[in-house]
Amino acid sequence: MGKRKRNERIGALIKILSHQPNTVFTLNYFSEAFEAAKSSISEDIVIAKKMLEELHLGTIETIAGAAGGVKYVPLVTPERAGFFLEKVCKKLEDPQRIMPGGFIYMTDIISSPSMVETMGEILASQFLNQEIDYVITMETKGIPIALMTAKALNVPLVIVRKNSKVTEGSTVSINYLSGSSNRIQTMSLSRRALKEGAKVLIVDDFMKAGGTAKGMMDLINEFKGEVQGIGVLIATREPEDKVVEHYTPLLYLEEVDVKNRRIIIAPNPKITTKI
Amino acid sequence: MGKRKRNERIGALIKILSHQPNTVFTLNYFSEAFEAAKSSISEDIVIAKKMLEELHLGTIETIAGAAGGVKYVPLVTPERAGFFLEKVCKKLEDPQRIMPGGFIYMTDIISSPSMVETMGEILASQFLNQEIDYVITMETKGIPIALMTAKALNVPLVIVRKNSKVTEGSTVSINYLSGSSNRIQTMSLSRRALKEGAKVLIVDDFMKAGGTAKGMMDLINEFKGEVQGIGVLIATREPEDKVVEHYTPLLYLEEVDVKNRRIIIAPNPKITTKI
Repeated sequence: MGKRKRNERIGALIKILSHQPNTVFTLNYFSEAFEAAKSSISEDIVIAKKMLEELHLGTIETIAGAAGGVKYVPLVTPERAGFFLEKVCKKLEDPQRIMPGGFIYMTDIISSPSMVETMGEILASQFLNQEIDYVITMETKGIPIALMTAKALNVPLVIVRKNSKVTEGSTVSINYLSGSSNRIQTMSLSRRALKEGAKVLIVDDFMKAGGTAKGMMDLINEFKGEVQGIGVLIATREPEDKVVEHYTPLLYLEEVDVKNRRIIIAPNPKITTKI
Repeated sequence: MGKRKRNERIGALIKILSHQPNTVFTLNYFSEAFEAAKSSISEDIVIAKKMLEELHLGTIETIAGAAGGVKYVPLVTPERAGFFLEKVCKKLEDPQRIMPGGFIYMTDIISSPSMVETMGEILASQFLNQEIDYVITMETKGIPIALMTAKALNVPLVIVRKNSKVTEGSTVSINYLSGSSNRIQTMSLSRRALKEGAKVLIVDDFMKAGGTAKGMMDLINEFKGEVQGIGVLIATREPEDKVVEHYTPLLYLEEVDVKNRRIIIAPNPKITTKI
């Protein structure tokens, strides 16, 4: 790519690293690409890391050893998460979003690329210290958030289907009780989609009783996988007693008052408070 | 954010701009954030733009006038597109991907975050000069690529559903002939999802006869929308005579030879050749 000055190197380094979060690049890679000494690249990284952290734009981690190098981690600080999630709540509280049956229209928000990217980064930030091989979601509405979470963690996304498809080869199907509709439904997943014994993060857009998440847990179990966590955009406060025990919502839906046309929704304080 | 040196400013500027492609930021924004004169920010941008272009990492465009500023454009050059698409073909040509019925297993590829991000950027690069208000796709498998295309273009994603859902309010449904299965199917879209008269880019993962794309065109028509283009990851060579006329595939699937277990697939030369 040709010899580069420090300010160009820092710009290029940040662009390359942040385009592929959690992907390790060796110092050699940058040293060759920019025709600069490894010691210069090391100094570039110190400057870039400090700046990113000070501006709450994520961080750069150094991995020692033979497979070592540096990677960009899209860590969202509680402060920035709070600022963003308050904005999302403001949007969601619009009474025009109340649908017949007390549902909230949120399709525009959960398929806005810039919003779901930040949601994915906040979710990923909660599970950065866990070993995760896959992010899994059930079609359809959770896919954008789950994809962005998978991107931030640098792992493949796996999409559970409502029916088995001819294009996916042999599948494993299970029946599950959808808590909200109280109906038996089917979910299925291609045998090829998950390696046995994989560590999995479940991501979805909405959780009421938790039936869908529980179904995914059972399905992952069929693949001898291990559920490392459940992250959702919104969990309802009621029922408090959900069929899954541990889950991490970005937002709590406190109440949808159809009569007075009022929605009460708030960020999860565990995410927006510094520990 | 505090006073910043040039090399920090260039790094931060590239991070902020490239995180939200095609989003205009004013020079004032950076001038205030970094406590630097606008003339210094202008110089930073010249350096950043030159470096990004030389390294094939996209470009920065300046928008003049009252609503002016700068934006990052994730332009993928034909050279880089070719390099990437050849790699995708290599992966797809693996005979183990052949499924009963001559289908190709590609779920892993179309839900790999880093791959779909580049696919989305390449698709977006083909339509950068068109005015586009929405990217639209039909659930399920095209969603990741469509989301990343929408992200690159900085427009909302709209997901057409196979059935109308209670959470989406009143919907418009149409019947369409799925060319490959030769069956009448239904697709539906929330009335709220598309503004009337919108300019729309259709994106999908796979096109054989084009029935699904044609269905989406008819649906967009119901919203008095205007189709600006159709972008797909893979189009089959056969049938040559599809029900839609203009479409832009990244790859052409030439042949799936089930008997000899051979897949022939190649990049679309119109995308990988410099004009």
